[in-house]
Amino acid sequence: MPVRPEPVFRWTLRVYWEDTDSGGIVFYANYLRYFERARTEWLRAQGHTQERLRDQARILFVVSESNVRYLRPARLDDVLEVTVALQRAGLASLQLAQEAWRTDAEGRRDARVAEADFRIGCVELGTYRPVRIPNEILQSIR
Amino acid sequence: MPVRPEPVFRWTLRVYWEDTDSGGIVFYANYLRYFERARTEWLRAQGHTQERLRDQARILFVVSESNVRYLRPARLDDVLEVTVALQRAGLASLQLAQEAWRTDAEGRRDARVAEADFRIGCVELGTYRPVRIPNEILQSIR
Amino acid sequence: MPVRPEPVFRWTLRVYWEDTDSGGIVFYANYLRYFERARTEWLRAQGHTQERLRDQARILFVVSESNVRYLRPARLDDVLEVTVALQRAGLASLQLAQEAWRTDAEGRRDARVAEADFRIGCVELGTYRPVRIPNEILQSIR
Amino acid sequence: MPVRPEPVFRWTLRVYWEDTDSGGIVFYANYLRYFERARTEWLRAQGHTQERLRDQARILFVVSESNVRYLRPARLDDVLEVTVALQRAGLASLQLAQEAWRTDAEGRRDARVAEADFRIGCVELGTYRPVRIPNEILQSIR
Repeated sequence: MPVRPEPVFRWTLRVYWEDTDSGGIVFYANYLRYFERARTEWLRAQGHTQERLRDQARILFVVSESNVRYLRPARLDDVLEVTVALQRAGLASLQLAQEAWRTDAEGRRDARVAEADFRIGCVELGTYRPVRIPNEILQSIR
Repeated sequence: MPVRPEPVFRWTLRVYWEDTDSGGIVFYANYLRYFERARTEWLRAQGHTQERLRDQARILFVVSESNVRYLRPARLDDVLEVTVALQRAGLASLQLAQEAWRTDAEGRRDARVAEADFRIGCVELGTYRPVRIPNEILQSIR
Repeated sequence: MPVRPEPVFRWTLRVYWEDTDSGGIVFYANYLRYFERARTEWLRAQGHTQERLRDQARILFVVSESNVRYLRPARLDDVLEVTVALQRAGLASLQLAQEAWRTDAEGRRDARVAEADFRIGCVELGTYRPVRIPNEILQSIR
Repeated sequence: MPVRPEPVFRWTLRVYWEDTDSGGIVFYANYLRYFERARTEWLRAQGHTQERLRDQARILFVVSESNVRYLRPARLDDVLEVTVALQRAGLASLQLAQEAWRTDAEGRRDARVAEADFRIGCVELGTYRPVRIPNEILQSIR
């Protein structure tokens, strides 16, 4: 029986001065910014913007758990490819696996710099109480 | 005729990894974070919190102009003293002069690392339109 | 047999504008900045500054793994107490448990906003290869 | 007599959660990150990477003065076009004018959100003392 390959979303970004620290490498908290950008672009690629989710559906996606392994240092001017793969979609939460890869001058993957798992909850704007993920989102990301 | 000395507010903070860049010094945008912290504490010292201004008075203070001279590099573990001096209080805006000083192990000023002028506007939450600064604020900061 | 209580280091900090996002709460990556500040102050409380470790011992502490549970949103103007507890000290790495608590106006713990485990490696400056943690550090933190 | 049009470099970027604050708009310090990214890409477009300048020529470009007018709020999900125009190239410093424009769904300029002048100095790595800008850079940017 054929196995349906897990679809993986890819987003490319550059390491700038603002991302590095005086150890000469990307400051560890900034990988969470990179992972978040890729998740936002993954949602956008399916037609959902967080601005509209907030203003119209009155919901926010918030991270409830982040587990990150920092494998190799990334440096100023590096180009990173950040991936997003949906692991599980529940009624009010998502489980995502993400990776960050350093790429070479031709844009090919060179070394994996970080890998992470995230648990994302859907909450009501203002109260931050868990709510069901809108059906149109669940259908498009599954 | 006696000159009333200009009252200057002082706020002390530490330089952490997150503040530095791979040039080995504080990333220039982060001085704006430092200056903002000192302004927030200056308001708090007079009994005003921005959380309450936002939720009760429905106003925000937003920076409309920042002019910064970066004089010397600040480094990891430095302790900085950041000052706030009111230059002018208008109906809907404030003009502030601020400095950041590196201090030595005894907390004495050692070298001036940055100096800045800010123009701050008072705006309505949501529309961002200019509104009058509440009287209780004007009275306490003048 | 008496149980030696696990010594816990505490560091207090304030949530500023720079830390929040347009969801109205602290942006999730910024908890990693808070946890890092507390670890730096924990080392400093035992007489070690990272500036000196870098320049004299030619070593850096880098995070190799971070696992964070975000329990409740923290907001602008909140005062957080961030803790550090050593779980295990190996030859070249440390395991730390940390928490962030919101405190009330009297400085008492009010609600736990985040908890985390970190694995920290000791690496050589420049090569980022693992090296032994200097004995004077191991002795003081154990 | 024909006027040689001033060449302007353009760089496009997206506003993410990390850039906003709980006022609902881009935090003012983050415009300095945007302006920096555009300057880095402007140098890169002429064949110069800051990583190489640092490691080979042993120089850094550091900002010595920033003057920013924040004209309109930018928001989550906005796409901004950031420009770089060289105003003056001295022996050891550059004067640059930059703007940030919000763009519409077709990528056309919609509203100017910020404008700024920067003075950038060329300094020696480590000492941060002013040094001459390498000729190959001066020739390519003029």
